[in-house]
Amino acid sequence: MDSLLSGSLPRNGCDVSLLVVGSIALDSVLTPFGETADDLGGSAVFFAAAASLLHPVQVVGVVGDDYPWDALQRLARRGVDLSGVERATGESFRWKGRYSYDLSSRETLETRLGVFAGFHPKIPPLFRDARYVFLGNIDPELQLGVLDQVKEPRLVACDTMNYWIQSKRDVLLELLRHIDMLIVNDSEARELSGEWNIYRAARWLLTRGPRLAVIKQGEHGAILMAQDCTFKVPAYPLEEVFDPTGAGDAFAGGLMAHLARTDDLAEANLRRAMVYGAAMGSFAVEEFGIRRFERVTVGEIDARVRAFRDLVRFEHAGES
Amino acid sequence: MDSLLSGSLPRNGCDVSLLVVGSIALDSVLTPFGETADDLGGSAVFFAAAASLLHPVQVVGVVGDDYPWDALQRLARRGVDLSGVERATGESFRWKGRYSYDLSSRETLETRLGVFAGFHPKIPPLFRDARYVFLGNIDPELQLGVLDQVKEPRLVACDTMNYWIQSKRDVLLELLRHIDMLIVNDSEARELSGEWNIYRAARWLLTRGPRLAVIKQGEHGAILMAQDCTFKVPAYPLEEVFDPTGAGDAFAGGLMAHLARTDDLAEANLRRAMVYGAAMGSFAVEEFGIRRFERVTVGEIDARVRAFRDLVRFEHAGES
Repeated sequence: MDSLLSGSLPRNGCDVSLLVVGSIALDSVLTPFGETADDLGGSAVFFAAAASLLHPVQVVGVVGDDYPWDALQRLARRGVDLSGVERATGESFRWKGRYSYDLSSRETLETRLGVFAGFHPKIPPLFRDARYVFLGNIDPELQLGVLDQVKEPRLVACDTMNYWIQSKRDVLLELLRHIDMLIVNDSEARELSGEWNIYRAARWLLTRGPRLAVIKQGEHGAILMAQDCTFKVPAYPLEEVFDPTGAGDAFAGGLMAHLARTDDLAEANLRRAMVYGAAMGSFAVEEFGIRRFERVTVGEIDARVRAFRDLVRFEHAGES
Repeated sequence: MDSLLSGSLPRNGCDVSLLVVGSIALDSVLTPFGETADDLGGSAVFFAAAASLLHPVQVVGVVGDDYPWDALQRLARRGVDLSGVERATGESFRWKGRYSYDLSSRETLETRLGVFAGFHPKIPPLFRDARYVFLGNIDPELQLGVLDQVKEPRLVACDTMNYWIQSKRDVLLELLRHIDMLIVNDSEARELSGEWNIYRAARWLLTRGPRLAVIKQGEHGAILMAQDCTFKVPAYPLEEVFDPTGAGDAFAGGLMAHLARTDDLAEANLRRAMVYGAAMGSFAVEEFGIRRFERVTVGEIDARVRAFRDLVRFEHAGES
């Protein structure tokens, strides 16, 4: 059998471009297993680190003049186009957080927005033809501003967070009318919809614009819901989880990159994309930051996607 | 295609008997959607109500002289053998609880053990040949006592709870050496093993006796772990959950009844049994008490098991 990744190069050529707009940060993370300081992080970085294992990625974001540009360049060597990353004068966006002993919750110790506070995404002319667009978790007004700049995307996916749900609900609801897929955590889906039941929450989201709702559930996997489809992918069963930071953005990266490289939005392929998302999410948590993505192999991705089949496989009596 | 339930009658005849030992209670439950008083409940009742949809069940338990025996007889008409239910003088076991608005937690308002306080399971001679045995959540000393009375069971499964993990840990560890399958909640697996990671917790359980560990995760489904197998079944995606009481015992009932009716412990059939368990758990929560089981049809069970396939189904690129 051919490698699952034999489709790594997009079938329809490199014009099926994938754009991410989001934060580029320096993360300091404390877990029960160790800590890091000023490591590469942010939604656009996690997304790009995962997605670029499957498909080229265009990044739009901003960094300060203190950002370790050489480290970011390691992504460029793997097919990440950084020409949309603005290098502004000032301090880079920094986030510092500490996880609980069981990694089930985290506390933000420090957030310094730096140059990110003045971020107004400018999409370079060459990126405006992007067919697949991921709007990382930033102000929904800025997310809407990105949509004004891209020409004719085939699929726009969007993340958000509780902060925007509370502070800019109306703008967010307007944004929902212009996107195809919302990718959020279960708590965000609940807060946005006012529905506690996660399937009712997803159903509510589908009435507000997007035709695809993806609900991330951390260690419990993720759900894809469309009008006539409910698909569940569990999380990969890891006996060691090291650092949950960025798993959601890596999930989105795997999902969107698989869609872009295949340029196929049929349900069967959306389901596969969810599994690539879950695979990338599982790699993300195995090491600090994006380190795992710097050495994961095509064979490992292939094996992990196959492992998801085995994890959920069952046959009816009488089937082979 | 034949009905999934075409194997309802055990392939090897009715001598493949299924025994449950557990509580028979009167539950008073308050949920955001309503309340009941003195409804049929208890681990043996939920187990039998679900299991008897697939296979005959023998019940050993105790009720007081105030128990609504006629209501229990409705189970007898569906293949539940109540000849092992002792009718003692005194009050029946009563439990009263209230669920939170989101059904995610519950508070016990009242527990009156009544005749259950003096329960010492006596297995009737005709039940001692049981091939499949489920030890519902009772004192592990009593569970061990049941194992002294059954002759040559093919598979013994066991439930427990945090109370016994804390108060009778040594007895529980002794019990583990004599059972084949432990079926517990995630919080119980964590507390018993001292491992927060649920896969590590399951792995730990496998070192203590049982060759099969089943971890129930409520709205997130359940995991089956054996030495060389990890299987995950999600919970059925319900947009309305009415009353979570008894879902875990109904899950065990579906699982064990499928094993008993097929008398097949191969991995493929264990996976199928997990899905029957998840299906029964999903029916349990759709109405108060065992009411849903009193009218669920073979066709509905069939359809729900098929729906689990659709929920997790995905193909690799190039597969049909």
